[in-house]
Amino acid sequence: MKRTYNKDIGEQVGQEVVVSGFVHTLRVQSKIIFLILRDVTGVIQTVVEASSPAFETAKGLSHESVITITGRVKEAKQAPGGFEINVSSLEVLSVADPELPIPVVVKGSDEETEAPTRFDYRWIDLRKPEKTKIFKIWTALEKGFRKYWDNNNFIQLYPPAFMSTPSETGAEVFTVNYFDRKAYLAQSPQFYKQMGMASGFEKVFMVAPVFRAEESFTTRHLTEFTGWDFEISYVNSHHDVMDAEEGMIVSGFEQVLKEFPETKIEVPSQPFPRITMLEAKKILKSLGVESGEEHDLSPEEERAISEYVKKEHNHDFVFIHEYHKSKSAFYHMRLEEGSDRSRRADLLYRGLEVTTLAQREHRVDILTKQAEEKGMSLEPLKDYINFFRYGCPPHGGAGIGPGRFIMKILDLPNVREATYLPRDVKRLNP
Amino acid sequence: MKRTYNKDIGEQVGQEVVVSGFVHTLRVQSKIIFLILRDVTGVIQTVVEASSPAFETAKGLSHESVITITGRVKEAKQAPGGFEINVSSLEVLSVADPELPIPVVVKGSDEETEAPTRFDYRWIDLRKPEKTKIFKIWTALEKGFRKYWDNNNFIQLYPPAFMSTPSETGAEVFTVNYFDRKAYLAQSPQFYKQMGMASGFEKVFMVAPVFRAEESFTTRHLTEFTGWDFEISYVNSHHDVMDAEEGMIVSGFEQVLKEFPETKIEVPSQPFPRITMLEAKKILKSLGVESGEEHDLSPEEERAISEYVKKEHNHDFVFIHEYHKSKSAFYHMRLEEGSDRSRRADLLYRGLEVTTLAQREHRVDILTKQAEEKGMSLEPLKDYINFFRYGCPPHGGAGIGPGRFIMKILDLPNVREATYLPRDVKRLNP
Repeated sequence: MKRTYNKDIGEQVGQEVVVSGFVHTLRVQSKIIFLILRDVTGVIQTVVEASSPAFETAKGLSHESVITITGRVKEAKQAPGGFEINVSSLEVLSVADPELPIPVVVKGSDEETEAPTRFDYRWIDLRKPEKTKIFKIWTALEKGFRKYWDNNNFIQLYPPAFMSTPSETGAEVFTVNYFDRKAYLAQSPQFYKQMGMASGFEKVFMVAPVFRAEESFTTRHLTEFTGWDFEISYVNSHHDVMDAEEGMIVSGFEQVLKEFPETKIEVPSQPFPRITMLEAKKILKSLGVESGEEHDLSPEEERAISEYVKKEHNHDFVFIHEYHKSKSAFYHMRLEEGSDRSRRADLLYRGLEVTTLAQREHRVDILTKQAEEKGMSLEPLKDYINFFRYGCPPHGGAGIGPGRFIMKILDLPNVREATYLPRDVKRLNP
Repeated sequence: MKRTYNKDIGEQVGQEVVVSGFVHTLRVQSKIIFLILRDVTGVIQTVVEASSPAFETAKGLSHESVITITGRVKEAKQAPGGFEINVSSLEVLSVADPELPIPVVVKGSDEETEAPTRFDYRWIDLRKPEKTKIFKIWTALEKGFRKYWDNNNFIQLYPPAFMSTPSETGAEVFTVNYFDRKAYLAQSPQFYKQMGMASGFEKVFMVAPVFRAEESFTTRHLTEFTGWDFEISYVNSHHDVMDAEEGMIVSGFEQVLKEFPETKIEVPSQPFPRITMLEAKKILKSLGVESGEEHDLSPEEERAISEYVKKEHNHDFVFIHEYHKSKSAFYHMRLEEGSDRSRRADLLYRGLEVTTLAQREHRVDILTKQAEEKGMSLEPLKDYINFFRYGCPPHGGAGIGPGRFIMKILDLPNVREATYLPRDVKRLNP
């Protein structure tokens, strides 16, 4: 007989069904056992009467064992969901150790167990329905992003993780023992996306891990995280890149709300507010929030400007753009020739930076000059600079951290909670 | 004015259009210049007359420079595609060095340049339309796989690359300097997929890089490649895993043929032929193909059995299953208790292994016993074995190498040609 998911039990009243899942709770009385079964779609109450041949087996079950039940569905007002199953037979598929290291409860468990212990037993932690849901929502969000990429003829590429020289500064890069030499783990797929532009692919996206050897202990930094990256050719400025990113986000949010209408987000209106760094600093000054840093925003300033935009424009997103050259990479195109401002933008969502985007400098002479002005050694950049030597369209792109996005969508306290198996300075397991 | 793609020029006869792309070829005569422009959709002939203000600029162009052209479309029987653009203005976006390290031709270029040199200049190599197409087809294939995952409620997860202990044997694993200790790069996301089953996710897929420190110099091995992985719960045997994989492949092939009907593949009929290793060896013996290895197939045997299946069943795919325990991992479930055969299957496509799949052993006592029988040390497996200690549904899954798939779909000579930026023992650049 075909298995029925718990969420569909209500459609089978009076029928015999087969259900499978974890023993969520078990209440044994002398003549009856109430067993709540949990599968990926939810929980269902089952009842084993003393007359059932399954009674003795059910009595000896441990919490979190995995079983298959056959039984008849009936309406039951007092049961969660309004239905229950009267068990005729029960098969044990996996016996759980009776001593669980952390509890599995439907809600509120995080207050009961310290985060480090929960992450040591991440596979049990994730059984809580609200934790499983984090990854269902991630799946939906990515599906929405991909709909945009699909509808706009993007080509998907997979960048390598191994590099022969560290990208950019060489700081914060992991070193790998690579046969008789060293390799480095990519801190960003950006150079490879740009290579795709030099190959004439015009529009590409990449979904790939990003590695950062940062000794950070914040709520938003990991040593390894998934990046969603895109790059597009023939842009006129960074505004075209912002337009594209808005399209992706709208598509992603629409998909999340389609599948999970209860999610506390809104499909953002386009265009998103765009504020230059100079304007942002003026606004922050008027709000009495100042960091002392002239050309960048502190986390406090990010939150304050987001709150301001929410109040003034009723928008959860804001682009901060036209960064000073001192806060721009050598590959960021300047606003105009000779300007001290660049075509860089950061996207803040609910007070947190989720993206950096830019139009890149594709002219090899200016690119080289800007690298030299930053005091960079050209030798390790040779491969990169060569990408632009044999023709390359003007282009720009963005890198998006889906973990941070999910963290803000679900109001999670830490990006680790939005990561399947977080890795940081201290944690490499399970 | 909005840019028109080269493929859409025919819809604009008599109209003024803007097109952008690379200077593919340039034929300068005293009174007229023929310039073929290449974009991601194809090539178009443009004509610059001596009377045009663009004439002097066009005359000085180098091959592969990137330009934007404005001009009027007209029918032209002798032009490729049957249309040409009469140029009124021309803007140079990027100047290519006149000395190209490798040529960019529409077809047949691979005979002209040795592979190592082509890969040194991979971004130019990929400009050839038939190379760009490899990645368009990959994008379509993955889109088809994702349709299956989407329609069947799979959850997408991202596995970590960093591990605290080497998975499985410890051989062929890359070591990373991780702050004050060592980390290891995942050789497979399998353990993390299985963890998802222990978390009750029931159906998951992962798209992630896989790292193998193998000193292989074959046409089908890389040190880093993209893996498509899935895992499903409540399977009755490895046949359920094969059923699921067939569904994915059918969906992927349908998508490729929808977007690129000229591709030389067929949507395979279901079920795919399934032959046990014992049967396969009998067939091979009758064909006079023998490797001397009793329990595994040599590359020659893989080709021979595929040819046999093609001839007998007119099918490009064949599952070889029920492997001997000596060729099964400790985590492969045995066919029956005490059997020397396991629930492992390999999928061959056009003579090449593209997948290994199995039902896993989810019972902690048998799993431990099987690891001990293989002479494995249990300490590094502790985290993994613990996944099954607190309840875990029976499950199985597969790992698919999309690079190998694409290689066989397009009949490429080497998996490197199906890889954006291949990495092997010798190659870490560009």
